[in-house]
Amino acid sequence: MPDLNALLNHDTVALDDTHNELVIIDQTLLPGRLAIARLKNQEDIWEAIKRLRVRGAPALGVAAACAIYLAAKNFKARGYEEFAQSFAHAQSYLNSARPTAVNVSWALGRMRQRMQACAHLSVNAIVAALKDEAMAIRDEDIKACLAIGEHGLSLLKPGYGLLTHCNAGRLATIKYGTATAPMYLGAQRGYAFKIFVDETRPLLQGARLTASELMAAGLDVTLICDSMAASLMRQGKIDAVLVGCDRVAANGDAANKIGTLPLAIVAKHFSVPIYFCAPTASIDMRTADGKGIAIEQRDASEITNMWYEETMAPAGCQVFNPAFDVTPHSLITAFITEYGLVHPPFFPALQKLFAEKTAAARSKA
Amino acid sequence: MPDLNALLNHDTVALDDTHNELVIIDQTLLPGRLAIARLKNQEDIWEAIKRLRVRGAPALGVAAACAIYLAAKNFKARGYEEFAQSFAHAQSYLNSARPTAVNVSWALGRMRQRMQACAHLSVNAIVAALKDEAMAIRDEDIKACLAIGEHGLSLLKPGYGLLTHCNAGRLATIKYGTATAPMYLGAQRGYAFKIFVDETRPLLQGARLTASELMAAGLDVTLICDSMAASLMRQGKIDAVLVGCDRVAANGDAANKIGTLPLAIVAKHFSVPIYFCAPTASIDMRTADGKGIAIEQRDASEITNMWYEETMAPAGCQVFNPAFDVTPHSLITAFITEYGLVHPPFFPALQKLFAEKTAAARSKA
Repeated sequence: MPDLNALLNHDTVALDDTHNELVIIDQTLLPGRLAIARLKNQEDIWEAIKRLRVRGAPALGVAAACAIYLAAKNFKARGYEEFAQSFAHAQSYLNSARPTAVNVSWALGRMRQRMQACAHLSVNAIVAALKDEAMAIRDEDIKACLAIGEHGLSLLKPGYGLLTHCNAGRLATIKYGTATAPMYLGAQRGYAFKIFVDETRPLLQGARLTASELMAAGLDVTLICDSMAASLMRQGKIDAVLVGCDRVAANGDAANKIGTLPLAIVAKHFSVPIYFCAPTASIDMRTADGKGIAIEQRDASEITNMWYEETMAPAGCQVFNPAFDVTPHSLITAFITEYGLVHPPFFPALQKLFAEKTAAARSKA
Repeated sequence: MPDLNALLNHDTVALDDTHNELVIIDQTLLPGRLAIARLKNQEDIWEAIKRLRVRGAPALGVAAACAIYLAAKNFKARGYEEFAQSFAHAQSYLNSARPTAVNVSWALGRMRQRMQACAHLSVNAIVAALKDEAMAIRDEDIKACLAIGEHGLSLLKPGYGLLTHCNAGRLATIKYGTATAPMYLGAQRGYAFKIFVDETRPLLQGARLTASELMAAGLDVTLICDSMAASLMRQGKIDAVLVGCDRVAANGDAANKIGTLPLAIVAKHFSVPIYFCAPTASIDMRTADGKGIAIEQRDASEITNMWYEETMAPAGCQVFNPAFDVTPHSLITAFITEYGLVHPPFFPALQKLFAEKTAAARSKA
C-alpha cells in the first residue's frame, strides 16, 4: 500500500507550464497505488479523461481547460483564422473523451469565448490569454470549494458524526472538494469530526477515493456499506449528512450519485439534516424540476463483474444500473453554495441567489 | 457458467441414507459453479457448516439433524448410556461449527429430546427414531415454506413488481424458501412477476444466491445494488417488498440482514408494503423488543477485500460491519407466517397466534 499522505503533496489536476504537461493523480489506481501521471500529448489527456484517471465535474473542467491551452501552445498558426481552426479541432477532440460530462464542454466553451474575445491580438497573446483563463477556472474552483467549506462549517459542531456518499472530495475538484470541504476546514480547526463514508456501489468511489483522501489528511474515517447508514443514524451516530450533487433543478430537486435518494429518505426518517454541497455552476435554473434531469443507465458489468475475481451474478442476469438518482427538494435540508446557504422554499431562494449573483457581476464589470 | 437449471434437481440439503451421506448444494461456489457435495464424515459436515457451504437458518437445522443421525448410525454403543455419551460428543462437535446459528443448536436439541424419549428402546430403535425426527424437521420446513408461499401469494397480484433482499430463498431452506415461496408459487400459476433482487453487500447473497435460484426456476429477475431500490420505488416499479427475517421480538421488531431497515424506511416513504416472511420458529416471544436483539459485528475484510482482486479501501481504514439491522415494528406492513398473516398491532396479534398454536398442539396430543 502506498503512503497515502503523499496525496496531500499533489493537486488533483495541475499545469506544469515549463514542461508542457498536465499533471494528475491517476484515480484508477487508488487506493492500491498513488501514481502521478504527467500527460504531454493530447492523446494521453484524452485517454485519461475517457478512462476516469481524472474525474469529478470541477476537476474535469480544469483538466479540459489546461489541455486545450497546452494544445494551443503547439498550434503552428500564422494568424487568428488558423488558430481558431486548430482550436475547434482540439476542442471537438477533447469533448469526445466524455461527451456527457457537462464540465468538459463548459470549460472548453469558456476557453473558446476567451479566444474569440482576443481575436484582434497576436497568436502569442491569445495563448497567454488562454493560460490566464485556464488558471482562472482553476482558481475559481479552489475559491468556491473553500467558500463552501466555510459556509458548511457554520452548520457543524466539534465532535459531530458526519456521513458522506460517493466522492465529492478534493479528488473531484482541485483542492478541498465540496462535501469534504467543511470536513477539511473543521479538521484544521480541531473539530474532531467522526466521519463515515458510504462505499458507494457499484463503482466504490467512497471506499476507493473518499476514504483515501480523508485518511491521507489524518481525519477519523470509518467505511461502511451503503446499506449500513440507517443503522448508524438509528444509533444516533450521525449528526449531519454532507453530499455533493451533479445537477440541481430550479425547484431544488437534485441529481447525485445513485444511493443519495435513499440516504435522504433515511435521514429525514431519523431527523438527521442532509446538506447538498452545490457550486452554483451545478444549479440549472432552466430545468424546472427533477423530471427534467435524464438519468444515465450504465453497463451491467459494473455490478456483476467489475472488481470481482469471479462473476458474482448468474450469467445473463438482467441488471438495472442507473448512475444517479434524483432527490426531491422536500427531502433536502439546505444547499451549501459558494455564496452561502440556501434554505427552503428553494425556488424563490435560488432565484434570489442568482439575481444577486448577476447584480454583483454587473457592478463588478 | 453452469447450467443453473440443474439447481432444480437438488434439494438444498438431502439425506442419502443408503450411502450414509449428507448431500448439499455447495453455496460457496455459486453462481460460478453448481457443485453437489456428498459429505460422509462428521468432519466434512462440520467444515461445510463452518464455511457456509450450507447456510440459512432452516437449512442449517435440517443439515445438523441429518448429520447427528448419520453420526448415530456409527455409534458402537452397547446400550442407551453409551449411546447418549456418544450423542453428547457429536452434538457438541456439530454445535461448534457455528455456535451463533440458533437453528443448529435448536435442531440438535430436538434430536436429543427424541433420543431421550426413546431411552427405553434398543439402540437400533433409537437410531430409527432419530431418522424419523430428522425427516420430520425437514418435512416441517418444506410445509412451513409452502404455507408461507400460499399466505404470501394471497397478498399479490399477477404482474406485480416484487423486491427482495439477501437470500431467504430455497437455498436457505429445503424447498421454496420463505420470501421466495410466494414468487415460486405465483410463477407456477402464471402470475408473471417482475422480480428485483438487491445484491446485498457485503456478502452478496442476493446476487450470488437469490438471483441464481430464481433464474434457475425461470422467473424474470433483475439484479440491483442495494442503493437502487429507492429509484425503482419512485418509478412505481415495486408493488411489494418481501424479505425473510432472522429473529422477531414480541412487539414485532424484526432483525434481518443488514440493509433491511433502510429498505423498510424507503418502502414506507413510497407507500410500498413490506412483508416479513417469518416461520414461527423465528418469532421469539421472550424478547420484548428489538433492543433485546444483539447485532453481530463481522470482519472488516468482508467490505475491504473479499471478492475483490485488489483491496478496495485504504490500508488500516476503520470499518463498521454489522451483519443485521433491526426494523422497528412500525415500519412493517405484516408478517407472513406458516399459520397465516399477522397484522399490526403485532404484540396482541402474535400473542393470539402463539396461544392458538399451543391450543392446537394440545388438542392434537
